[in-house]
Amino acid sequence: MGRKAAVVGGGVIGAGWAARFLIMGWDVAIYDPDPEAPRKTGEVLANARRSLPGLHDVLLPSEGRLSFGHTLTEAVAGVEIVIEAVPERLALKHKVYAEIQAAAPEAVIGSSTSGFKPSELQEGAAKPGMILVTHPFNPVYLLPLAELVPSPANPADVVARTKDILTAIGMYPLQVRAEIDAHIADRFLEAVWREALWLVKDGVATTEEIDNAIRYGFGLRWAQMGLFETYRIAGGEAGMRHFIAQFGPCLSWPWTKLMDVPELTDDLIEQIAGQSDAQSGQHSIRELERIRDNNLVAIMRSLKGYPGDPNAGWGAGTLLREQDARIGQAAPDFAGPVQTGARAVPLDWTDYNGHMTESRYLQAFGDATDRFMQIIGCEGEYLATGGSFFTAETHIRHLGEVHAGDRIELRTQVLGAEGKKMHLFHSLLVGGEVRATGEHMLLHVSLATRKASPPAEPVAGNLAKAWAAHQTLPRPEGAGRAVGQGR
Amino acid sequence: MGRKAAVVGGGVIGAGWAARFLIMGWDVAIYDPDPEAPRKTGEVLANARRSLPGLHDVLLPSEGRLSFGHTLTEAVAGVEIVIEAVPERLALKHKVYAEIQAAAPEAVIGSSTSGFKPSELQEGAAKPGMILVTHPFNPVYLLPLAELVPSPANPADVVARTKDILTAIGMYPLQVRAEIDAHIADRFLEAVWREALWLVKDGVATTEEIDNAIRYGFGLRWAQMGLFETYRIAGGEAGMRHFIAQFGPCLSWPWTKLMDVPELTDDLIEQIAGQSDAQSGQHSIRELERIRDNNLVAIMRSLKGYPGDPNAGWGAGTLLREQDARIGQAAPDFAGPVQTGARAVPLDWTDYNGHMTESRYLQAFGDATDRFMQIIGCEGEYLATGGSFFTAETHIRHLGEVHAGDRIELRTQVLGAEGKKMHLFHSLLVGGEVRATGEHMLLHVSLATRKASPPAEPVAGNLAKAWAAHQTLPRPEGAGRAVGQGR
Repeated sequence: MGRKAAVVGGGVIGAGWAARFLIMGWDVAIYDPDPEAPRKTGEVLANARRSLPGLHDVLLPSEGRLSFGHTLTEAVAGVEIVIEAVPERLALKHKVYAEIQAAAPEAVIGSSTSGFKPSELQEGAAKPGMILVTHPFNPVYLLPLAELVPSPANPADVVARTKDILTAIGMYPLQVRAEIDAHIADRFLEAVWREALWLVKDGVATTEEIDNAIRYGFGLRWAQMGLFETYRIAGGEAGMRHFIAQFGPCLSWPWTKLMDVPELTDDLIEQIAGQSDAQSGQHSIRELERIRDNNLVAIMRSLKGYPGDPNAGWGAGTLLREQDARIGQAAPDFAGPVQTGARAVPLDWTDYNGHMTESRYLQAFGDATDRFMQIIGCEGEYLATGGSFFTAETHIRHLGEVHAGDRIELRTQVLGAEGKKMHLFHSLLVGGEVRATGEHMLLHVSLATRKASPPAEPVAGNLAKAWAAHQTLPRPEGAGRAVGQGR
Repeated sequence: MGRKAAVVGGGVIGAGWAARFLIMGWDVAIYDPDPEAPRKTGEVLANARRSLPGLHDVLLPSEGRLSFGHTLTEAVAGVEIVIEAVPERLALKHKVYAEIQAAAPEAVIGSSTSGFKPSELQEGAAKPGMILVTHPFNPVYLLPLAELVPSPANPADVVARTKDILTAIGMYPLQVRAEIDAHIADRFLEAVWREALWLVKDGVATTEEIDNAIRYGFGLRWAQMGLFETYRIAGGEAGMRHFIAQFGPCLSWPWTKLMDVPELTDDLIEQIAGQSDAQSGQHSIRELERIRDNNLVAIMRSLKGYPGDPNAGWGAGTLLREQDARIGQAAPDFAGPVQTGARAVPLDWTDYNGHMTESRYLQAFGDATDRFMQIIGCEGEYLATGGSFFTAETHIRHLGEVHAGDRIELRTQVLGAEGKKMHLFHSLLVGGEVRATGEHMLLHVSLATRKASPPAEPVAGNLAKAWAAHQTLPRPEGAGRAVGQGR
């Protein structure tokens, strides 16, 4: 039986939570009295389905079941966690918690609130210890950060349980050490927002110029290192102490207007909205969402690096690698061609028409080779002894199209294993149908001398076993072909 | 004769400027009385050489000549622009400008200052109109943003000239509309820095937790869209007006401590430095620089997309595409195999040992195919009529290793062009030596029906001419081979 979560409030944040739980295999019940909630949820879920599965280099579990509760009581029955994502009104939240706790007293209640402290949320609750803050960031189905803010009223095991749940759905639970207004990240966002409003109001820059000042400069830094690690580098060999000594005095310079809050007059709102229209009005919000998600997938996957590279991964990319490892891959079975990969085609593998780009076929085959090497023990310790396989030659056939989001499977048949040579034949399948094949001749090499050398144990023995098992299989169609050779 | 720039001040910022000018083909003279300046510059230049050339999908011009002036006067002789990157002391800057203008009155002087306004820099100058702010971001050789801040004293043609120079070296000159303390971006950084100091001081979060709150959440958003475009999406179909109506009231909530400045006591500095050591101390500053640059290259290239995809490119990736177009490629010459690519191997094409990853060979060949198609007119208008070529079959041979930063060249020979078929043979060379080959059979297809169809004009005629020119060339070694076939 699958794990179960409920989401109260089907706006963009609630729907984003629901999408993440569903795609990670949880059943989700949503409660929202708005008759438009199923449509709105459907739109967010469609965005999540096109972007999230392909972030991973392994196949995610089957999607969970989505239901809409007629009542809140019905929605929360039997769930491990209830995510609250209703408007930011404390009285409303208190009312919702009372109803939830009457129906599901054992469920953790995670609030998506940006502003309220957990102790405020807990006021007057039947079970205050079950309520805490789990503050996500839009788009919830892609961004891993969830600020986990407990109060002293939350027992340690409730906090631990919530952490486990957030980790299970691929998020990074950042436990805040003391509850404060707006937690951590929104304090930064609020500071920047205030300053930005002044810059627009004072005619120093337009909304587009401000966005460019961010995304062509420090925004690129902050996608991978934050504030302190970036400044540690700026401090040079002398590090953080030197940096603070240099940059510290600026704190007292008149560099910000942060002490003041600009008044949001109608004129200022019109000015901002007008500039924003000029900047982004050529794209609909739906288009902007897709562009944003394409970019986020590409950035996060660029931080992830090649799955076969044991030293790859940084920042959000490392989180993705950890989630891949938690999900795991199928155990090898040599009765037939062995499964050496199963994944959804990610957005950054495709062109704007959604077709898989030519070079990514070889990436899929290369990843399958890496997985096969891992299966026969050519990984970690063995690589450290200085042996590995290098590809000498490859033949790829494109037999049908593959699209963004397609679940592809890689199967590998050993066509030969003799001396230094390993001859592999990969098939790339969609729905059991072969869409491409890759035939590869690899040579075992010494990483020190870069010269061919016979494999050592345990690789030699494992490869021999695999070849013995596959020797009796029929030779796959297309093996041994040259480019342009007739059938 | 190459273009010439001078840089006064050889610290990390000055050296970053010098590296960018040099790698974009300018001659650079540095003046810095510090005897360590050549060593420090060399370290920054080494970082720039490993990361910047590969950001581009075309070959950059030959690197310019670097020299160190014995005197400031000698360094600035005959240059178009002098970049000032000396410490943030106004009197020092004034003294430097007086010396520069005595020796090179026609040169633009761009100050790297984070804090001073151009009108302050211009005070007492012989030619105030030639001095303005060109504020870059570290690492200067990778981040495209340069805040260009003129005062009313700067003539329009000086501003335009400075813009052209910054654009020529691949930067994005963001002209600030009114001079203010700290320009634009540093006002945001200052606001976030203040808030971060409070969070550490109050024990709400450590430096590492704050960095994670940034890089797992809004930092990923800000690498590609800024503040306003992100919030436009958050406003949903109702857009910016709706967002401000929702989020505006928070401005008056007690979400920040920005009105106050934390005192930088020794205790607070020790606390921050100690946390930073715990967070990042396992990496030296040099390692962190390389990790940062690897990540920036990967992120910026992920935003760039495949060069052959006309719809790809966003944010900093679009800036890179524009710079590639400015630099341009060699004109086709069919007397021998035609050059279909020349580039440096980017960091994101390589594994942690610096070897080019298997799938990137096919990317290099795929890019070469795209370029060949472009040469024979299969681009833009022709694609819009619904015709294109799809790869049916590929054979790759790996003959030698290729490393990060290697300048690779792609040459393409037509092996056949008959009906719907186009048979291409690409060679990938380093220093004139073939390191890999790719043999490809492509079929001309109708993009509407996805079925094979003969090419139309002008592609059919151009391809026939190319084939006629190449028909007399010797057949390349390795053509027509199957995987594992003896020589």
